[in-house]
Amino acid sequence: MLSLEAANELIWKKFKHLPVGYAEVDVLEGIDRIVAEDIVSNVNVPDFSRSMCDGYAVQAGDISTANEDNPVLLEHLGEVASGEKATMEVKKGQCAYVSTGSMMPAGADAVIMVEQTKVQEKESVLVFKSVIKGERMILRGDDLKAGEIIIKRGERLSPRHVGALVAAGIYEVKVFTRPRFAIISTGDELVDIGQEPAAGQIRETNSYALQAFITKAGGEVVRRVLVRDDRKLYRQELEIAVECADIVLISGGCSVGIRDFTADVINSLPGEGVFIQGVAIRPGRPLIVGECMGKPVFGLPGHPIAPVLLFKIVVQKLWHRLYGCFEEDVIRAVVDFDMSPSLYTHLLVQLEKGEEFIKAKPANLANPAQTSAISRSNGYIWIKDLEAGLCRGQIAEVFSF
Amino acid sequence: MLSLEAANELIWKKFKHLPVGYAEVDVLEGIDRIVAEDIVSNVNVPDFSRSMCDGYAVQAGDISTANEDNPVLLEHLGEVASGEKATMEVKKGQCAYVSTGSMMPAGADAVIMVEQTKVQEKESVLVFKSVIKGERMILRGDDLKAGEIIIKRGERLSPRHVGALVAAGIYEVKVFTRPRFAIISTGDELVDIGQEPAAGQIRETNSYALQAFITKAGGEVVRRVLVRDDRKLYRQELEIAVECADIVLISGGCSVGIRDFTADVINSLPGEGVFIQGVAIRPGRPLIVGECMGKPVFGLPGHPIAPVLLFKIVVQKLWHRLYGCFEEDVIRAVVDFDMSPSLYTHLLVQLEKGEEFIKAKPANLANPAQTSAISRSNGYIWIKDLEAGLCRGQIAEVFSF
Repeated sequence: MLSLEAANELIWKKFKHLPVGYAEVDVLEGIDRIVAEDIVSNVNVPDFSRSMCDGYAVQAGDISTANEDNPVLLEHLGEVASGEKATMEVKKGQCAYVSTGSMMPAGADAVIMVEQTKVQEKESVLVFKSVIKGERMILRGDDLKAGEIIIKRGERLSPRHVGALVAAGIYEVKVFTRPRFAIISTGDELVDIGQEPAAGQIRETNSYALQAFITKAGGEVVRRVLVRDDRKLYRQELEIAVECADIVLISGGCSVGIRDFTADVINSLPGEGVFIQGVAIRPGRPLIVGECMGKPVFGLPGHPIAPVLLFKIVVQKLWHRLYGCFEEDVIRAVVDFDMSPSLYTHLLVQLEKGEEFIKAKPANLANPAQTSAISRSNGYIWIKDLEAGLCRGQIAEVFSF
Repeated sequence: MLSLEAANELIWKKFKHLPVGYAEVDVLEGIDRIVAEDIVSNVNVPDFSRSMCDGYAVQAGDISTANEDNPVLLEHLGEVASGEKATMEVKKGQCAYVSTGSMMPAGADAVIMVEQTKVQEKESVLVFKSVIKGERMILRGDDLKAGEIIIKRGERLSPRHVGALVAAGIYEVKVFTRPRFAIISTGDELVDIGQEPAAGQIRETNSYALQAFITKAGGEVVRRVLVRDDRKLYRQELEIAVECADIVLISGGCSVGIRDFTADVINSLPGEGVFIQGVAIRPGRPLIVGECMGKPVFGLPGHPIAPVLLFKIVVQKLWHRLYGCFEEDVIRAVVDFDMSPSLYTHLLVQLEKGEEFIKAKPANLANPAQTSAISRSNGYIWIKDLEAGLCRGQIAEVFSF
């Protein structure tokens, strides 16, 4: 049976040339979207040197000997008003008043704080302290240099990028379009939203949970249906799904039982059909991956933990790779239990604030609870070294949901 | 000067009775909103015991001696179809066929997998293995018990909660309304969006960055304006802001310079006026907090890092406390530098994947870059022990943006 890594490589080989779309959006609308090109500042920020305080713009060399007992007298050229161009030039022996944020006049190379000076008469100022060259000023380009990259292609736009973008005059960004998903859920025992389950029936939850994860990750769900275990209906729905979406997810019908039509139905549509059936991981072992009409179709087992996990570790992986996005939301935590699984396992964990470290505990060791285990988990640990397993006290990476 | 903790306590005392609003929203629309009441399952999930595999529902006691050499013969009562009510009762010596997810018939207390059985003739089945009581079945209420809390008041609804909510038949949740913010930026040197800065001018970035952080955190910005340093205009704008928003943020004009009108203007409106002016932290020392017409008004210094940090550590803190939300997005990282600040400091850091731990480096030690430092940082460390400072190799909490 394929390893998870081999399955992801195979999926990548088949779909790495899938077309991707682009959109130009306002910076604020672009928050959480994946950026589609390196975004570069075309200007220096600031575009002129500025004072960092209220004081006098000086030549540092002029006041190198100044102290309380031996102040230096400078000629006062006047004030640089905030937001206006500094028109004077500060020469040897001269100074000009600047406010916080004022443009530095030509010739000046430092600012002395107003508290360390005294206006002597109208046209001169006594300075009681020395400064070093560059003191209390922000140089042209100190924040951003022309040509500097603010966000790289494949990064997710975050509120923390907004200030720098706007500072560089960038109010629109090029992002990847949201991938469109169709979700088909199957199972005769399932009832859809709004219906009351009768004896023997349960509520369908997977398509709803998947929609939430897809939307949060920046995708769009264009179709979500529940189909009975009827091969003909199922095939019709898959055809519609493949036509309207970029990626199709099917929940259920992936095992080898008599009602497990997923592989058959994928194979009945034009395209290469199923090329992965089963991966050596738990949960998610019955994973099916196929190609219909050029598009990826993922058959996810119905067990509620599997579809959500497979979305993160397989489906989102493909989509992020297409967009050049390599983000991983991972923290390190100390493991608070022992475990030696017999198959490569993604274990849901709950995190707790420990004394020095964050502690990870299994989210569902006691009972087979499924939706509730996802609900209370903060992430998962990927156990890929079966011999070592997980030992109490070891540091593990926890991938967040 | 007030400590940050004392300032937050004072703010809480003044505003803990601010009214909060509620909304009923669809579960999927509620993602990332703060839940306004404990959400409880009113049903058991599943509401009946179910089989976890294809096989036969049995009484475990009947087949306790079964093995390859000595199989046990059971009477076959027929099949429980998936999604239908189990109408038969399995008595001693009997069994019934069940599929994965089928309702368990009365009397049965375990399932034997179909692979470990052989249909002998139409009405009997040979069983080649024993099972223990409860094996391969999910008991009523194993996932959620009636009365169990799925999400607590004050938690943020996440995609991982969706499956459990829907499983319990909950498609709508009660959440807090988004708090409405107005943002006023001041400064004669600032130009607004779409304008090209002239010499001496720079682009206004704080209101945009604040809007991004507020929106991401679940708030709503109902007004955003740039005002010149004109006391009358400024007062007019503050009056409008206080009328249309729940919380008002002002960026700039908080120092003690000649153009720093913020405190005066807050005091000129009806209400208690300014009750905090200055906190012993860097950046953000000139923070002003006041009350106008019953509403909180925060004066945030114009330095680009300060407003964003103060939003997280002061403004959002109040709002979360009003909503009973105590989430903290914090990880532990190993510090990769030494630092002994002279004032309580929030230091922006960049995170890097280290060998065993995640490493934290300062985001802006080399130059006074501001918007770019926020852009490249992943979070901040709160240095509140000045004597100890931060030492290379120590573990620190990093709060995420």
